[in-house]
Parts: sequence; C-alpha cells; structure tokens
Amino acid sequence: MSASHQTEGLFPRGTAITSEHFRGTVWLEMLISDAVFNCPIGNVTFEPGARNSWHKHPGGQILLVTGGSGFYQERGKPARRLSCGDVVKILPDLEHWHGAAPDSVFSHIAITTNPQKGGAVWMEPLSDDEYRSATRKIGN
Amino acid sequence: MSASHQTEGLFPRGTAITSEHFRGTVWLEMLISDAVFNCPIGNVTFEPGARNSWHKHPGGQILLVTGGSGFYQERGKPARRLSCGDVVKILPDLEHWHGAAPDSVFSHIAITTNPQKGGAVWMEPLSDDEYRSATRKIGN
Repeated sequence: MSASHQTEGLFPRGTAITSEHFRGTVWLEMLISDAVFNCPIGNVTFEPGARNSWHKHPGGQILLVTGGSGFYQERGKPARRLSCGDVVKILPDLEHWHGAAPDSVFSHIAITTNPQKGGAVWMEPLSDDEYRSATRKIGN
Repeated sequence: MSASHQTEGLFPRGTAITSEHFRGTVWLEMLISDAVFNCPIGNVTFEPGARNSWHKHPGGQILLVTGGSGFYQERGKPARRLSCGDVVKILPDLEHWHGAAPDSVFSHIAITTNPQKGGAVWMEPLSDDEYRSATRKIGN
C-alpha cells in the first residue's frame, strides 16, 4: 500500500465532478453501474474543505470510509467526524451533507440503495459559516 | 493507517465464521443488515489459505478488495489474483469461489445485490488440489 493510498483511499480517484452541488474539488470513479446489480457504487474523493450541498436520497445511501478525514451531518444534528473504517447509514429522505475536513483529503465508497426510488434530491449549498461551525464544534 | 490495516483491511474483523462452506479461518463483520437498505454488506477476512466452497448468488454479489492478497475464480476459468482496490462483479447464478492467497491474509467488502432473489446457493468444497492449481497457475 503506497503513501497515496493512505490519503486518497484504496480505489481509483476517477475524474473531477463538475456540478453546482459540490463545492471544492471532488473526484468520482464509478465502480459499479451495471443495471443487473441494481446497486450503483462510486468512489468519492474530496480535497480538503470540499463538500456537497444539503441533499437527500429517496432510497437511502451507505458510505464506507476508506481514507483521510471528513464529516457527515444530518440536518439539525451535530456533525460526525469520520475516518477509515467508519460506516454511515443514511436513511431514505434524511437531509444531510458530507465532505472532507478542512485539513485532510477524504475518501469514501458511496452505495446508492433502492435506486429504483430515484436519484439524489439537491437542496441549498452548505454555507462557509455552516461548514466552519460544523467542523469546529467537534473536539479533535 | 496502521500496519494492521494493510494486511487485515480497513473495517472491523468481526467474529469467526462457523460454517461447512468455509475452509480455514474466515472472519465476518456485518456492516449493514438493516432491512430498509435492502443491501446486506459484510466485511470478510480470510486467513492465509482460507476460502469458501463453490457457490452462486441468485441476485449477484460485488466484492471490493480492501486488504491483502486473494483469488477469485469462476467455474471453468483461470483464477484472478486480487489486491487492494480491485472490484469483482459476480453476475447472478455464476458459480465461483473466493479466498486468500496461500501466503497472505485477504479482506474484502461483500455486497449482496438483489437480496430479494435469495441467499447464496452452496455447492461442493474447493479441493486442496483445485486450490493449489488455481493459486499456482498465475505468475506473480
């Protein structure tokens, strides 16, 4: 395992996402998109400070953290700090965001569950103040 | 990331499997078993030389390799050597086995796809001769 795996995760980084729903540079490699599996899986890599907007998944989502340090926050709750080996269960229709810590790359596998229920529903971006507050509140 | 992560994978090892369908010591930690996700996910860790019997999944399975070195073989084909970052797409009803290399621990995430189609269908054990032949044929 090389040094790059330790900070960027085990799976290929893929290509940079071009989307208004992401802030900062975020890379995506789809690992599984074959219809037969009914289970889209992507490897997502956030550069330090990068994150997505508030959003929800009609069928839920699972995150498996494979590298670096990041945060996951559900609307109305404190953010949860994430590191290698953490598993996040995102229930259907639960509003949340996830992204890297301010000072670390962050990689996770993202598994879309029950994809027949539809894709992500995007809401407003996380503001810089929300991000600073969320990532500052937790002692680390 | 500690040295143990490099050989045992990122996720918890869990408990030893007691099953006639596994040979050698194999550990399982279920990461996701909540019905709402319809997507059972386990972290499986094989000690060197450990493997499962020939089997198939009615709804398919996906393996994401997170540590060590192992093998995957479909019936009638040469075995494929696996290491960190490899992804294995196991189509529904395709007969196969997977396990560790003779000289390495091996860890992978196992995702059961389309679980409503039923659990694994087990067949005969991989013999020692089949294992030696499968793991010897590939130059490494």
